[in-house]
Amino acid sequence: MASDRATLMIAASESDSNLYYATRFIAPDPFIFMDVKGKRILLMSDLEMDRARSQATVDQVLSYSEWERRARSQGVAIPGSVDVLHLVLQDHGIKQLLIPGNFPFGHAVKLQALGYQLETKKEPFYERRAIKTTEEIRCIEDAQRATEAAVSAAHAALRASTIRDGILWLDGEPLTSERIKKLINVALMERDCVAQHTIVAGGDQACDPHDEGSGPLPAHRSIIFDVFPRSAVTRYFADMSRTVVRGTASPELTQLYQTVKDAQEEAISKVRAGADGTKIHQGICDRFDAAGYATGVVNGRMQGYFHGTGHGVGLDIHEHPRISRNGSILQEGEVVTVEPGLYYPGLGAVRIEDMVLVTRDGCRNLTNYPKTFELG
Amino acid sequence: MASDRATLMIAASESDSNLYYATRFIAPDPFIFMDVKGKRILLMSDLEMDRARSQATVDQVLSYSEWERRARSQGVAIPGSVDVLHLVLQDHGIKQLLIPGNFPFGHAVKLQALGYQLETKKEPFYERRAIKTTEEIRCIEDAQRATEAAVSAAHAALRASTIRDGILWLDGEPLTSERIKKLINVALMERDCVAQHTIVAGGDQACDPHDEGSGPLPAHRSIIFDVFPRSAVTRYFADMSRTVVRGTASPELTQLYQTVKDAQEEAISKVRAGADGTKIHQGICDRFDAAGYATGVVNGRMQGYFHGTGHGVGLDIHEHPRISRNGSILQEGEVVTVEPGLYYPGLGAVRIEDMVLVTRDGCRNLTNYPKTFELG
Repeated sequence: MASDRATLMIAASESDSNLYYATRFIAPDPFIFMDVKGKRILLMSDLEMDRARSQATVDQVLSYSEWERRARSQGVAIPGSVDVLHLVLQDHGIKQLLIPGNFPFGHAVKLQALGYQLETKKEPFYERRAIKTTEEIRCIEDAQRATEAAVSAAHAALRASTIRDGILWLDGEPLTSERIKKLINVALMERDCVAQHTIVAGGDQACDPHDEGSGPLPAHRSIIFDVFPRSAVTRYFADMSRTVVRGTASPELTQLYQTVKDAQEEAISKVRAGADGTKIHQGICDRFDAAGYATGVVNGRMQGYFHGTGHGVGLDIHEHPRISRNGSILQEGEVVTVEPGLYYPGLGAVRIEDMVLVTRDGCRNLTNYPKTFELG
Repeated sequence: MASDRATLMIAASESDSNLYYATRFIAPDPFIFMDVKGKRILLMSDLEMDRARSQATVDQVLSYSEWERRARSQGVAIPGSVDVLHLVLQDHGIKQLLIPGNFPFGHAVKLQALGYQLETKKEPFYERRAIKTTEEIRCIEDAQRATEAAVSAAHAALRASTIRDGILWLDGEPLTSERIKKLINVALMERDCVAQHTIVAGGDQACDPHDEGSGPLPAHRSIIFDVFPRSAVTRYFADMSRTVVRGTASPELTQLYQTVKDAQEEAISKVRAGADGTKIHQGICDRFDAAGYATGVVNGRMQGYFHGTGHGVGLDIHEHPRISRNGSILQEGEVVTVEPGLYYPGLGAVRIEDMVLVTRDGCRNLTNYPKTFELG
């Protein structure tokens, strides 16, 4: 990097993980971060000054209102954030800026008008973010333990249910997706983990991989659990999917499950530093095709296998790298999911997902939860 | 709007409320939305196609993979999302695009290189988002009822506590911020509301308005509760702050509380369609100054009143309009907070926040929770 080029981000770290990664400071509203010749600087509002000074892993926290006053004294009537930033950049002799691809266009245009040269860097903006430290792995594993405890409680509720009229019953009422999702989400909150969009979807609902599920859960049909909370303490995610049947699965459904499980295990066996995510994904597609499980549109609806095999997990639930059609070369220290699935309306859906740590010669599975298909 | 200009967004609706507002469709990964001469079009991945077709409030859902194949057949070896979008825009004869200020710079540069003219629109990108419908108000009120139930349970725990060595005790152990926050967050999750960054901060901790609080709660000192969950069902937020003392407040602290409460009630009395948010905010600043509560840096730390008086609440926790230094003219149908506070290390902190609906000749308070300072 040329010495007169600064890295710049303007975002709310609450929703921008690169900015949180760079500063370890959470704020709900946008703030300015720059890395000027290795010196990391924040421009913070009066409201966030003290907290930023005590919490942010940066070298300097400047007062936005102080620099705003300076801008006003130099004749800018109502200084916007780019006007204020401009003064700080001038102060450091910066004319070139490296910004992430998601940098707000509105700010970028103003910076260009002030003569700045902008260069974007695609994801991963910070390559190091993909390579997890021991501490980051611990955070992810902690979230995963909470996930397993919550799913275990949910499966216990399914085991305790009875079957009548083709659906599950508990405590005298139909056992619904909503009730089980709430059980999982509350159990996670009790462990300081925030779960959103938890999936508990049975029967044909589960054939849409992102359908969160609703209404009474079916007996004798597959039910997909996909749970991916973020730790409210560390902000790291975990991610796990399991598919179960309460009652008796048909031979066709059992075969579907076994096919996905075998494919998942084979894919996990291929994960190692240097492995090609595109090839691992293609291997699963080929395997499903060879087993007679076709992918394509039938009656106007996708069926078969039509999502990626895996993604990085960390401060975002979906982050670099990918094990998919446009996959990445895996590196030691990455945490990735391996989650093939098959979806056939009428027959049902199966997805099985573990989260693994890529090592030099293989991977370490960070998931401890059993793969049980038919619940007791 | 010229008939050959389209509105364009590329974002993940999970974290971009304008896109969610336009489509009522939630997805964790970025997708493409355009409004072409009044026709609202989505470009969706195979994974999200079916769900988008059944859930999104748009006119057409196009298959990204189908248009990607078209791009490839026209010679683009590895089409990116802008290449695919380009084909659809060409198909509609679009050359001018209206984009939000936060549109990703990386995509914008590629569109410019393809000859598109980009025009940004500042927030509010959709003016109608600020004006809540009856249904939206109901969603916000539902989240507010859940917030009140959770805070009520927390205050009951404080009332049940005993005082020893200057701190609160419950069930034989010190009653901590962490325990009360978890009680609130779990109570909210039981009501399908997701709370993050809940504030339960006592004593000098509360003098940093965004300090979430930690450790044993102090007796005889003020404790700020600021709770702002999002409904997991409707995605609308609520927001409420209360300040309480368990034990006996000093006369100085009681006076601080009364000053903030009076200021808040006066500010609420000024809220109406056409009122100037800047003036309402300035009125509170003047009132605090006149009462001898100075604002500024003391011992390197901000004290007094150094945040805005209010903000819009809806699909975002902080949205248009503002009641602050750079405030907005309020309009009928907006939902705004009114939340003055005073912060003096040593003495303590007070913030009181209600959420109100702006009406033609005043406002309707959407908050039902009492303002009790000393808990029983």
